[in-house]
Amino acid sequence: MTDPQIAAEILNQALPYIQRYHGHTFVVKYGGSAMSDPETIRGVIRNVLLLRLVGISVVLVHGGGKEIDRWLARLGIEKKTARGLRVTDDATMEVVEMALAGRANKLLVSEIQQAGGRAVGLSGRDGGLLVGEPVSTDLGRVGRIRSVDPDVLTMAMDRGYVPVVCSVASDEDGGALNVNADTAAAAIAGALKATKLILMTDTDGVLADKDDPSTLISHLSRSQALEMIASGRADKGMIPKLEACLHALEAGVGRVHLINGGVPNALLVEVFTDAGIGTMVG
Amino acid sequence: MTDPQIAAEILNQALPYIQRYHGHTFVVKYGGSAMSDPETIRGVIRNVLLLRLVGISVVLVHGGGKEIDRWLARLGIEKKTARGLRVTDDATMEVVEMALAGRANKLLVSEIQQAGGRAVGLSGRDGGLLVGEPVSTDLGRVGRIRSVDPDVLTMAMDRGYVPVVCSVASDEDGGALNVNADTAAAAIAGALKATKLILMTDTDGVLADKDDPSTLISHLSRSQALEMIASGRADKGMIPKLEACLHALEAGVGRVHLINGGVPNALLVEVFTDAGIGTMVG
Amino acid sequence: MTDPQIAAEILNQALPYIQRYHGHTFVVKYGGSAMSDPETIRGVIRNVLLLRLVGISVVLVHGGGKEIDRWLARLGIEKKTARGLRVTDDATMEVVEMALAGRANKLLVSEIQQAGGRAVGLSGRDGGLLVGEPVSTDLGRVGRIRSVDPDVLTMAMDRGYVPVVCSVASDEDGGALNVNADTAAAAIAGALKATKLILMTDTDGVLADKDDPSTLISHLSRSQALEMIASGRADKGMIPKLEACLHALEAGVGRVHLINGGVPNALLVEVFTDAGIGTMVG
Amino acid sequence: MTDPQIAAEILNQALPYIQRYHGHTFVVKYGGSAMSDPETIRGVIRNVLLLRLVGISVVLVHGGGKEIDRWLARLGIEKKTARGLRVTDDATMEVVEMALAGRANKLLVSEIQQAGGRAVGLSGRDGGLLVGEPVSTDLGRVGRIRSVDPDVLTMAMDRGYVPVVCSVASDEDGGALNVNADTAAAAIAGALKATKLILMTDTDGVLADKDDPSTLISHLSRSQALEMIASGRADKGMIPKLEACLHALEAGVGRVHLINGGVPNALLVEVFTDAGIGTMVG
Amino acid sequence: MTDPQIAAEILNQALPYIQRYHGHTFVVKYGGSAMSDPETIRGVIRNVLLLRLVGISVVLVHGGGKEIDRWLARLGIEKKTARGLRVTDDATMEVVEMALAGRANKLLVSEIQQAGGRAVGLSGRDGGLLVGEPVSTDLGRVGRIRSVDPDVLTMAMDRGYVPVVCSVASDEDGGALNVNADTAAAAIAGALKATKLILMTDTDGVLADKDDPSTLISHLSRSQALEMIASGRADKGMIPKLEACLHALEAGVGRVHLINGGVPNALLVEVFTDAGIGTMVG
Amino acid sequence: MTDPQIAAEILNQALPYIQRYHGHTFVVKYGGSAMSDPETIRGVIRNVLLLRLVGISVVLVHGGGKEIDRWLARLGIEKKTARGLRVTDDATMEVVEMALAGRANKLLVSEIQQAGGRAVGLSGRDGGLLVGEPVSTDLGRVGRIRSVDPDVLTMAMDRGYVPVVCSVASDEDGGALNVNADTAAAAIAGALKATKLILMTDTDGVLADKDDPSTLISHLSRSQALEMIASGRADKGMIPKLEACLHALEAGVGRVHLINGGVPNALLVEVFTDAGIGTMVG
Repeated sequence: MTDPQIAAEILNQALPYIQRYHGHTFVVKYGGSAMSDPETIRGVIRNVLLLRLVGISVVLVHGGGKEIDRWLARLGIEKKTARGLRVTDDATMEVVEMALAGRANKLLVSEIQQAGGRAVGLSGRDGGLLVGEPVSTDLGRVGRIRSVDPDVLTMAMDRGYVPVVCSVASDEDGGALNVNADTAAAAIAGALKATKLILMTDTDGVLADKDDPSTLISHLSRSQALEMIASGRADKGMIPKLEACLHALEAGVGRVHLINGGVPNALLVEVFTDAGIGTMVG
Repeated sequence: MTDPQIAAEILNQALPYIQRYHGHTFVVKYGGSAMSDPETIRGVIRNVLLLRLVGISVVLVHGGGKEIDRWLARLGIEKKTARGLRVTDDATMEVVEMALAGRANKLLVSEIQQAGGRAVGLSGRDGGLLVGEPVSTDLGRVGRIRSVDPDVLTMAMDRGYVPVVCSVASDEDGGALNVNADTAAAAIAGALKATKLILMTDTDGVLADKDDPSTLISHLSRSQALEMIASGRADKGMIPKLEACLHALEAGVGRVHLINGGVPNALLVEVFTDAGIGTMVG
Repeated sequence: MTDPQIAAEILNQALPYIQRYHGHTFVVKYGGSAMSDPETIRGVIRNVLLLRLVGISVVLVHGGGKEIDRWLARLGIEKKTARGLRVTDDATMEVVEMALAGRANKLLVSEIQQAGGRAVGLSGRDGGLLVGEPVSTDLGRVGRIRSVDPDVLTMAMDRGYVPVVCSVASDEDGGALNVNADTAAAAIAGALKATKLILMTDTDGVLADKDDPSTLISHLSRSQALEMIASGRADKGMIPKLEACLHALEAGVGRVHLINGGVPNALLVEVFTDAGIGTMVG
Repeated sequence: MTDPQIAAEILNQALPYIQRYHGHTFVVKYGGSAMSDPETIRGVIRNVLLLRLVGISVVLVHGGGKEIDRWLARLGIEKKTARGLRVTDDATMEVVEMALAGRANKLLVSEIQQAGGRAVGLSGRDGGLLVGEPVSTDLGRVGRIRSVDPDVLTMAMDRGYVPVVCSVASDEDGGALNVNADTAAAAIAGALKATKLILMTDTDGVLADKDDPSTLISHLSRSQALEMIASGRADKGMIPKLEACLHALEAGVGRVHLINGGVPNALLVEVFTDAGIGTMVG
Repeated sequence: MTDPQIAAEILNQALPYIQRYHGHTFVVKYGGSAMSDPETIRGVIRNVLLLRLVGISVVLVHGGGKEIDRWLARLGIEKKTARGLRVTDDATMEVVEMALAGRANKLLVSEIQQAGGRAVGLSGRDGGLLVGEPVSTDLGRVGRIRSVDPDVLTMAMDRGYVPVVCSVASDEDGGALNVNADTAAAAIAGALKATKLILMTDTDGVLADKDDPSTLISHLSRSQALEMIASGRADKGMIPKLEACLHALEAGVGRVHLINGGVPNALLVEVFTDAGIGTMVG
Repeated sequence: MTDPQIAAEILNQALPYIQRYHGHTFVVKYGGSAMSDPETIRGVIRNVLLLRLVGISVVLVHGGGKEIDRWLARLGIEKKTARGLRVTDDATMEVVEMALAGRANKLLVSEIQQAGGRAVGLSGRDGGLLVGEPVSTDLGRVGRIRSVDPDVLTMAMDRGYVPVVCSVASDEDGGALNVNADTAAAAIAGALKATKLILMTDTDGVLADKDDPSTLISHLSRSQALEMIASGRADKGMIPKLEACLHALEAGVGRVHLINGGVPNALLVEVFTDAGIGTMVG
């Protein structure tokens, strides 16, 4: 255990950050390796609860690609992708929704409750939270978001719950759509005019040279982000994330951060220290 | 279409029932054949929304045995039962939770939203709603309920949402438990001091002679219900339902009804006409 | 009694109408033959309470010509009319106010209370609700409305009461004015930005040919209404009603309906069925 | 006009009385000669508004015997009395209600509005305020009060209105009952747990010797009041007033005052000076 | 003691003034001889409480030159003035703040509490109420006000307290500044959009000829006030007061009054009688 | 600066303490050497603001003996003590109140505002917060507390302000009383049913042997505390503190802590680490 004097001094150093964000709203896209093992999950959850207790309202948005893959495999359903996206026929969509809303979501809710917090698990279909439309016919039920009704989120946050949202939307007929979790988080952050959107990834942030990990960019302006997408300098997996960042900023979100969810206490380091980690866009 | 004059007169006749129940809370256990086809589901949902609009707060509690069976079969997991209950090992529990929280629950939420209502889908694990413990070691994760925290339900109802709850609870370690939906509905009704608990079944109600459908009992007193359980006169499938009824009544619920969910508009007939249907216990 | 299944189905069919109007405000001008016998009054009152219970705020505005005539006759005061209006000298005004505020108003309040509702009887003089001025010197205390302060109405509706308002206004000196009940209802509907103004009359609606009852017009546009007034095609008794309709529409009321109050359940037929009755203006 | 310095000093002297009664409720029975001419009425109304503005909630309860007599005479209906009470057959009741609810009540409301206050005129039939039963068959619709629902009064007072209530009650069938205004005021004061009930009369208060005006009693204890009724020493017209006083005190009203409404500013003298006037019971 | 009838009549005459100002806010600069002896203080406090009880929110702003002088003398600190202002070095500022916030302020709070009112004593440093900057280096800590945050005042007034504010402000480093009490009162009145700012002085108001007390000006327009300052016709001590008046008017205060605080009940005479006293600016 | 990873981990470790105390109230007696130099003051203030931001309502109660002594010396007033207490004649009381309410209090308020918090400085005389009586005639205006009205504190805390209270009370005549700051803090903690009362002192806590600093007692039961007072084993300066602790515990305060205010971040170490410091009583 840390020396109490040092511990107290460190708490003290967090004061200006807490003052700055008290009463604000953060949307955190939670995913990737940060969701892979119980110990890491518990660590992230504790970070989230600490944010909550110092007066920051947090919405947790998650996907769950690995969980989906596992169930598809067990059910003998072939995984197909096109242009980097999961081709989602009706049979696949059933599995996607079950794995996200019925497994990953409830697991996170349970972890928050066990850690002494209060959480409500939601799908984008609850209360009309996320309404969308298919992206293109060949991708099946892969959807883009057309509207966000955040009422169910503000209700939960006002009552002290952490809303945990899985990235499933409704189409106009009430059917399920498979939406990218980064995109969903960005749309929700925009609708809530969140102060920060934090996207947890498996990399340390945006690289100037996608093949050289030593070229991490700390701060990326909007125009630089656009340029990286246009020029193809951005890693293919990074493109939808950068697009989500740009959409959120346009919708009025204050700052967007790409951080490595696998780093212990990444959220706290990002929010409560001068150091910051990963890439800030905006 | 009905003659408008007749229609209006019938609406008029519903007035005293609406006056009686305006501002009250009903818990409806929804299940069985009433959940089997889209048309019937839509019918029940419309009934629920009508109750809501005349000022009755409705909580919908559901199971989903057939959906669970379907996925177990597809996954090649053998279904085992003991003493009429599904033996729920960890692998089965995963499927139970996915099928209920990830499929059945979201389907019902979506139907309510499509019908112009507002719904929030919840598991008993959300907000610590249902906390329980295993019934016995040989049944695995089959659980009984020890405590109900209805805060998440009252929050949703106060804001105009219909809470849709699937019958999964948390154990003390945050793990999932498979609880009987009738039991869950009864526990929730008790915690909310609901005016009515309505259990939808596939039969017309309680039969005096379990082999003779013509012996339907309209009104069953508590002592008669106890006697039917004790004497074995009650059908085996009916016993847990009768026990749920008795628990609810002890917990302060006003009236409990067993109705055939397959009958069109069964809820409205029960609530808004003198006729009533099924069996009233209490 | 109706078959419960049919009754329930009919209730079900009312759902979309209830959804549409839940939370809205209707102003109903109640009068004529619909106010003549206890049975009919009770029927209208039950319709009003049903509207209230499905979430529609209703203001009831009434006159009471027959009651006034009866008391004038008993008191030996001669009834005089000029241009279709009751010449209202001071002695007549005393009788008008007594008959409306002291008799008809309290009768309606009492009927609502007896039917299980809650009502407050008001005059346009209460809380400065209706302030006006004399129309012309030869008509005495016949008034036109200059301003409406609906605070006393919203107070009552917010607390669950049906406000019942008689068509008497104050002049600038606090004296009583006799105002047309259709006009009063239209002014109140305008001040409340009501969704619907419903004028109950003794006829089935507006006739294209005032002498041919088979020429009922279902929908009359504003310009058509203006034309009917200008051209004299409208029945003389219908003119002030059409003018009230037009004023209400100009003040932001959504729809105005002229319906025959003598038809059983006319309000419910109009509001809750596709059929509609009478003439819709707007 | 008074010297401003003297005026200010007098205002200053009222401070402790205002502090004592700020936030309290007074019920004032208004009647007799204080209601006879416009000048006196205006004076009383101004007193009431002043009480209101210094933070005292006032309910005004009134009868109107002279107005009733006037209309009975005009209508050629014979006035009958038995045991000092108006025998009230159905024809008489119609006139009583019209004269009270339709004339006297609206006149007082209008005076308050004209004086810059806000008032709502109510009958005991509004909102189920006063529910009673016939006293005896030979008195017709003369009623005694069985229950008071003050919701409509607190609603009005909370919104800044002075409720003006006429002494008509409902029987169980919704019919009108003629109740004594002192009794009605006492019942209302009891239901509101008023700090003061003030009964305005045409005499200076209770006389020790009913034939000697110089024997005014300033303070009458409960037991003395009971003794005066029992012994017959009280004037016959004073008996129902003393009974009303005793009922109010039993129901928890703080103090009851009998004051001469004809004395200018009687209310203010009673409430805001040491002198007091009339007789205090309790 | 005054005749009760006359007293009541006078109270009655105050009605229109009370009606006019009910619910409004007055800022009163309290100072000079009106603060010199206990009897006078008690009189002003009673006036303030009376205003409060008739529904006027009052903020009391005070200085305390004599108290400061007394302590400076006792401490052997020389009093220096420049351009009519107290040169306030750090040692003097300590004494100013102690004398104002620690003596005069608490004395006034105590008087209000003793008189049955509720008061909270505040400095301009509490809650960031008054933030300013030094006027010029040679005057030391004499400050001008740059911003007013009235939150702490509205909090106190909403809860029924009279805020008593001493004229000390904070500079940007949190240090104390000595601000003129008239100026502080004007700034606060502007921030609260007060209906009236009342400056208590030791003179009867503004004189047309500063050497002739018989030339009191009852009403001074803005342009006349400006002219008096510009032309030098105003008394030197009067100039900062007139400037405070003009600033308040520009900031949206309704009326500004200069009254002689030494006149008994000066506040009541000004507010509740036609006479008025002193000079009204605006 | 600390390594961000270590810093974040330490923040994380504070989570259970924050969860435990979120929404609770602490009363902190602030004094002694912790109030002696700007750096230390700023440190304590930052600790207080951190408590506030993690959801703990803090009341700061302070004395200021050194400041009082300084002013007495400057004014040439002799300091007298009797039984360890300052003999407080009227001249001394003036200085006590000025030094506490006018200097120390405003300094602390200013520090909180400068540190980005919001504070309101109060005396026990504000809003009738502390009412007391003289302890004995020979001690002059030294007072004991008879009643606490915490309304002004809850008002301030509900609005987000830190109330800073100096230890001056009112006697029944509104005069000032000099009360011990530990006693005042204990009385306030009792009235607020605070979770913790923390007394900052210049020692490390209670010593088993008052002459041996190595005998610090971590936990002292109530009976042990009583015994230490009775037996005289407690240091003389410690006796009033122990008595304050016992009074607070009797009044329902959860825990009382005696900590050395001179230790950096003493408050945070006590509240947010397992280590704790000083002596816990209770």
